[in-house]
Amino acid sequence: MEEWTIEINRSATKKEKPNTDQLEFGRVFTDHMFIMDYSVPLGWHDARIIPYQPFSIDPSAMTFHYGQSVFEGLKAYYTPEGNIQLFRPEKNMQRLNRSNDRLCIPPIDEAFVLQAIKQLVYLDKDWIPTAEGTSLYIRPFIISTEPFIGVAPSHQYRLIVILSPVGAYYKEGINPVKIAVENQYVRTVKGGTGEAKTGGNYAASLKAQELCSQKGFTQVLWLDGVEKKYIEEVGSMNVFFKINGKVYTPALNGSILEGVTRNSVIQLLQHWNVPVIEERISMEVLYQAYLDGSLEEAFGTGTAAVISPIGQLSWEDKDLYINDGKTGKISRDLYNTLTRIQYGKEKDPFGWIDIVNEANAVKQ
Amino acid sequence: MEEWTIEINRSATKKEKPNTDQLEFGRVFTDHMFIMDYSVPLGWHDARIIPYQPFSIDPSAMTFHYGQSVFEGLKAYYTPEGNIQLFRPEKNMQRLNRSNDRLCIPPIDEAFVLQAIKQLVYLDKDWIPTAEGTSLYIRPFIISTEPFIGVAPSHQYRLIVILSPVGAYYKEGINPVKIAVENQYVRTVKGGTGEAKTGGNYAASLKAQELCSQKGFTQVLWLDGVEKKYIEEVGSMNVFFKINGKVYTPALNGSILEGVTRNSVIQLLQHWNVPVIEERISMEVLYQAYLDGSLEEAFGTGTAAVISPIGQLSWEDKDLYINDGKTGKISRDLYNTLTRIQYGKEKDPFGWIDIVNEANAVKQ
Ligand SMILES: Cc1ncc(COP(=O)(O)O)c(C=O)c1O
Ligand SMILES: Cc1ncc(COP(=O)(O)O)c(C=O)c1O
Repeated sequence: MEEWTIEINRSATKKEKPNTDQLEFGRVFTDHMFIMDYSVPLGWHDARIIPYQPFSIDPSAMTFHYGQSVFEGLKAYYTPEGNIQLFRPEKNMQRLNRSNDRLCIPPIDEAFVLQAIKQLVYLDKDWIPTAEGTSLYIRPFIISTEPFIGVAPSHQYRLIVILSPVGAYYKEGINPVKIAVENQYVRTVKGGTGEAKTGGNYAASLKAQELCSQKGFTQVLWLDGVEKKYIEEVGSMNVFFKINGKVYTPALNGSILEGVTRNSVIQLLQHWNVPVIEERISMEVLYQAYLDGSLEEAFGTGTAAVISPIGQLSWEDKDLYINDGKTGKISRDLYNTLTRIQYGKEKDPFGWIDIVNEANAVKQ
Repeated sequence: MEEWTIEINRSATKKEKPNTDQLEFGRVFTDHMFIMDYSVPLGWHDARIIPYQPFSIDPSAMTFHYGQSVFEGLKAYYTPEGNIQLFRPEKNMQRLNRSNDRLCIPPIDEAFVLQAIKQLVYLDKDWIPTAEGTSLYIRPFIISTEPFIGVAPSHQYRLIVILSPVGAYYKEGINPVKIAVENQYVRTVKGGTGEAKTGGNYAASLKAQELCSQKGFTQVLWLDGVEKKYIEEVGSMNVFFKINGKVYTPALNGSILEGVTRNSVIQLLQHWNVPVIEERISMEVLYQAYLDGSLEEAFGTGTAAVISPIGQLSWEDKDLYINDGKTGKISRDLYNTLTRIQYGKEKDPFGWIDIVNEANAVKQ
């Protein structure tokens, strides 16, 4: 880590905090944000924590035109003892740099940005909700800010980290969802940007999501963009299937986002001696497993829901009812263990927890 | 067209205009810009022309995170008589709405936005350069502005139109370029957003573009994302091949952007009784045509270059030298006719020209 300092400009007033029961994802933000700019030849510079506020940007800023941007998403959790925990944040920093590489954005100093995130979280720690299942969502993102509308990598960028308190994902207990297999639209394709966490992938997904919602489904299951046969992801989650006692998940293939939760689920299952197989999985094979009764569970994984059991999967004219539409044992065990580790209610044998504490207090 | 009014706030000062010889694409903007906002339930509202300036936006504005945005690109030309001409601008308005539909952005009133563009161009008409080959580039774009980081279509948008004087694309005469066929990265795929003019497609293209530039090529030729066999586009242009007296261009297939220049070239060729065939074209078939000597010309088409002849095409370990690396007759004829129509030097038999004049003067 290079020598960096973070300028601090504390907010003079504190915003009112929302009521815990009314927390909605991503609408309310804390008192401060972290900003850092990139230019040639300065590189990343001017790291600062300032009051959360709108910023001024030129209408020709490249990000508005050519979508050169990346982002991350992770959470801070309060333990019952009042400690603040992050879950594998270094994984998010690494993925941010992998996304940067794909999008031709200059790399960040991972250790420094993680340090900055911890300072920001500690400064706004009163915003971390404490009720069961609540947390503070952390959104780092980088946009291209050069005022130039030529199609080329920008020479100027801005990294911003904002924080948003979020309510419990499952207010009435973990609950299986209805998913539709998407046959027309694709999220991305091998050789595209699917491995990267970049806006365009999400923009591309909106239409299919909107159409499936109208039909009463929660999310779509994305098939590969080449043959439209192989399973990729579920909405903005990775996906797993338990078949005949073994757990399968699509192998990383260049178009699937490598989820931190996916990686943690794989490690946890291996720790439990449950066989995990990463391979290409076709809808046809999954359907056969369903027909012969060996498809036992299906679930999505991601930072937001942790584990999202799939109770029904609709594919063309077929409906697969999985585990009688109920949450399966593996899904529940994974959910419980992961959340207990995240919230510091269970020992973390994997070194996944990163503590935010006094050491991250702003000195000024 | 509904009843709309445009508020005008004229710039108190006029910026200095760049020297015509030093005009670079997309770096300098005129004195004014057009803005219009969308919200629920107001719809599109608050249409206004204001001094060109940065604007303030929340860091949680959706466009920064999920890339829900679209844009257009067209030009205004001065004729030798001092008339101001647009070239088929209604096509750009139609395409903007097609892009909107794919990106779940509410449609615009095409006639009204075109009207607003004409007012803006007329107000800043002193910025339209008059030297040979120069023009005023018009960039309408829409970004999603709702301060919310959930993955869903935004409920708030901003449409902005900015203007930038551009120099001649070919300073030393029309000149063939070296193109590399891209085998690893893809721009988009069927079921994706390729048909739409949206940021993510351009973000996805940067990496391949950067790698090919390093190897001395001007642009990449994109193959289809499914089989990596069929020709799609060249950089940000559509592509044509003259083979045995006939002109071929990839048929619109859901992943190719429908260029206004492409459409105009097809009409012009038909007008000249040159057979034009829109069909799926594989690199293999093109290579065979090259080997048997029937590949006569290749060129890209787009608003920026109009016609960009391809002198060399590199595919895997093969180099195709087309028309001895010189500009072919069809390429030159198309370039001359299209630019002569655009600049009002030749009669427009197609009704392509739309005049900007006194009627578009701001009344206030
Ligand atoms: C497309 C996509 N896939 C998968 C995931 C799951 O990744 P993680 O477990 O790191 O949250 C996410 C989001 O977070 C995502 O956006
Ligand atoms: C990807 C892409 N293809 C083709 C074109 C050509 O379209 P037009 O002729 O309308 O400029 C453009 C740009 O303008 C483009 O961005």
